[in-house]
Amino acid sequence: MTNRTDGRTPEGGAPTRSHAPALARRRFLRLAAAGAGGAALPKLAGAGEAGPPAEYPWSQSLGAGVVDRPYGQPAAQEAGVIRRNVPWLTAGTESSISFSPIQDLQGILTPNGLFFERYHAGRVDVDPEQHRLMIHGLVERPLLLAMSDIVRFPSVSRIHFIECPANGGMEWRGAQLNSLQFTHGMISCAEWTGVPLSTLLAEVGVKPEGKWVMFEGADGAHMNRSLPLSKCLDDCLIAYGQNGEALRPEQGYPLRLVVPGWEGNVSVKWLRRIKIGDQPWYTREETSKYTDLMPDGRSRGFTWGIDAKSVITFPCPEKPLGKPGLYEVRGLAWTGNGKVKRVDVSFDGGANWQTAALHEPVLSKALTRFSLPWQWDGGPALLESRVIDETGYVQPTIADLRKVRGVNSVYHNNSIQTWQVKPDGSVFDVQTA
Amino acid sequence: MTNRTDGRTPEGGAPTRSHAPALARRRFLRLAAAGAGGAALPKLAGAGEAGPPAEYPWSQSLGAGVVDRPYGQPAAQEAGVIRRNVPWLTAGTESSISFSPIQDLQGILTPNGLFFERYHAGRVDVDPEQHRLMIHGLVERPLLLAMSDIVRFPSVSRIHFIECPANGGMEWRGAQLNSLQFTHGMISCAEWTGVPLSTLLAEVGVKPEGKWVMFEGADGAHMNRSLPLSKCLDDCLIAYGQNGEALRPEQGYPLRLVVPGWEGNVSVKWLRRIKIGDQPWYTREETSKYTDLMPDGRSRGFTWGIDAKSVITFPCPEKPLGKPGLYEVRGLAWTGNGKVKRVDVSFDGGANWQTAALHEPVLSKALTRFSLPWQWDGGPALLESRVIDETGYVQPTIADLRKVRGVNSVYHNNSIQTWQVKPDGSVFDVQTA
Repeated sequence: MTNRTDGRTPEGGAPTRSHAPALARRRFLRLAAAGAGGAALPKLAGAGEAGPPAEYPWSQSLGAGVVDRPYGQPAAQEAGVIRRNVPWLTAGTESSISFSPIQDLQGILTPNGLFFERYHAGRVDVDPEQHRLMIHGLVERPLLLAMSDIVRFPSVSRIHFIECPANGGMEWRGAQLNSLQFTHGMISCAEWTGVPLSTLLAEVGVKPEGKWVMFEGADGAHMNRSLPLSKCLDDCLIAYGQNGEALRPEQGYPLRLVVPGWEGNVSVKWLRRIKIGDQPWYTREETSKYTDLMPDGRSRGFTWGIDAKSVITFPCPEKPLGKPGLYEVRGLAWTGNGKVKRVDVSFDGGANWQTAALHEPVLSKALTRFSLPWQWDGGPALLESRVIDETGYVQPTIADLRKVRGVNSVYHNNSIQTWQVKPDGSVFDVQTA
Repeated sequence: MTNRTDGRTPEGGAPTRSHAPALARRRFLRLAAAGAGGAALPKLAGAGEAGPPAEYPWSQSLGAGVVDRPYGQPAAQEAGVIRRNVPWLTAGTESSISFSPIQDLQGILTPNGLFFERYHAGRVDVDPEQHRLMIHGLVERPLLLAMSDIVRFPSVSRIHFIECPANGGMEWRGAQLNSLQFTHGMISCAEWTGVPLSTLLAEVGVKPEGKWVMFEGADGAHMNRSLPLSKCLDDCLIAYGQNGEALRPEQGYPLRLVVPGWEGNVSVKWLRRIKIGDQPWYTREETSKYTDLMPDGRSRGFTWGIDAKSVITFPCPEKPLGKPGLYEVRGLAWTGNGKVKRVDVSFDGGANWQTAALHEPVLSKALTRFSLPWQWDGGPALLESRVIDETGYVQPTIADLRKVRGVNSVYHNNSIQTWQVKPDGSVFDVQTA
């Protein structure tokens, strides 16, 4: 065998590195043969050079041509991997929420078709040719921008999660729904492309007395929120791209605000107006909604931040265990404070903890994958995950949260989730304290 | 204004940092007002607190409810952003290629619906319940694995491009097609999730004489390729996930090989068989196809690697310039050798070069975005980009390549692309040497 490439030697050789975590790799080496269902080949008659014994129809026929689907779609067998809503949760579907099927998702990105939805007056179809963004108020040079103007500014792309602060809100008074999709599915993560808000604010010139910024949507709700100028000048984006393509209508096509690490409702969709002022606007969505009713009867407002949170995505109610044996426990962690630093997993309801492996890349204000091998003996177990972020913040228990916040809150439940595993492998949403 | 959050001070303040490249930000500050089309607000009668003057229909009505589309779709106005083929390029569509609309894409990810297609016997619909992966040959413990076995192994996710080595193949004998989609659209980039191939090879136990590995697809073509064991033990994945969801049928649902940084055809789709041997198989797809005919009449084989390549995506034939003024030139760079280190841009056909900004994250064997501000004076220009990767490899000109390889090649044209800009802003695919 001669070397016929440009400097690449094709012969085989010793392994140079493995991407599997070393611990996991060692312990999983006998997984398939030891009862996971993998069959040792000699059991199968007829397996030879020609391939597996069965020649399936798709191996003996011509398939569809290219551009048969110029814009593709998932396999028919994946038809159950969809967004779902809880009909009794809201009066109608136009001011409501749908949940992402995070029990079926992999990696850290959410496909655009499965990104969770939150509307205040329904999903509107905005004409990008007619759409305008107005920037005014305490500025030197108010502007009205068309989409063709906005896409000319220097652009950046950033991978960030967006979470509705109501994610897990039904759990404040106890375990409510036996489903990962419904307890944690108000979170998604995408690569956003757009113009740094700081660039547009420099363009209009914020006056010295400008301290607050109001963002308003073009939907019928005219959804609007006030944000402090400091956050606007930090890492906010005026986004028109999502995971490589134009924003989906569900996510504010053609233009939205993205406020990394803060509660989803401030990332105003179908963005049409930015006004600079010297104080917050106290809009409906920051007074009657998106505030936290405390035990003393007063409400906390402007609680924008998403604190550190994590959840085990396998096993979960929708993805039970099979026979006893070796499993990879998998999950997601995130924090609005920056990067995830560590995730611990407990199999006994928090009495003992083991540190999970974090999967690269660990990005700021983005979902982070973790995993840990687990030899399940077939007995009952209480699975929990607990994240610690780079600021040292530790994910609390629901009991910890209730001590401070009572049980009247709807928003900002970032507590540890407990999954009860029964000997038959089924998994249930429980609260242990 | 009191601080009513947990440790977050809501008042406005000085900017802490900007994500816009400093150079670009300074130079773009007057872009909108200076002729990009942005309108100074006073020109618009009636603009006031209530918002832009026009109240569009979508701002005065209730939109669609959640789960109206449980699996979403792009906006109707984006219907032109699709994969396209060149009908005369191949005898039929089942053994053919479609091109990704990279002129419309943003960031570094390709949405699954727009990932380029390459079939050898059409897109097949494989039943994941029936599908099996056989691993045999020079191994201690041959195995037949169901999908339910494979997903139990420790999983990883990696963002990698896949490029067909025929990308740009029509340009070997001269500029052929005036389109970025058709000159460079055989590349896409996704987050792949699956099992490291090294894990499965450890499971079966490769015998000491095993040096080569053959991969075979379940489609009618039984597409198969030989790879050296060293690459298989390095960074290859047996993937079932793509950008967060299951692989699309176009990409090998339910299981494919992903060989990071190597030509796309070796990343065998609908993967059904892995055989370990002591020499390559010299399959049809590594003898009559996917070899490079050299000037002396001999063919190079096993030229798997994708060397460094880049292209300017704006402006391009599909995305011309408007009036003279300040623009952000944008592009994509990649290398199968690891990470992109630097990209230079020329506006005069390669006589002078300026270094572009690389956008984070710069990942190994993934697409990397670059950009550079450009004050276009309205004169003719020849735009080029040239990438240098972390190994020091410099993207060649087509003249450089032809000196070594002649003009008989179909594959591995990674040369510098020249876009000719005319005074009316139109852009053309040209070769200057």
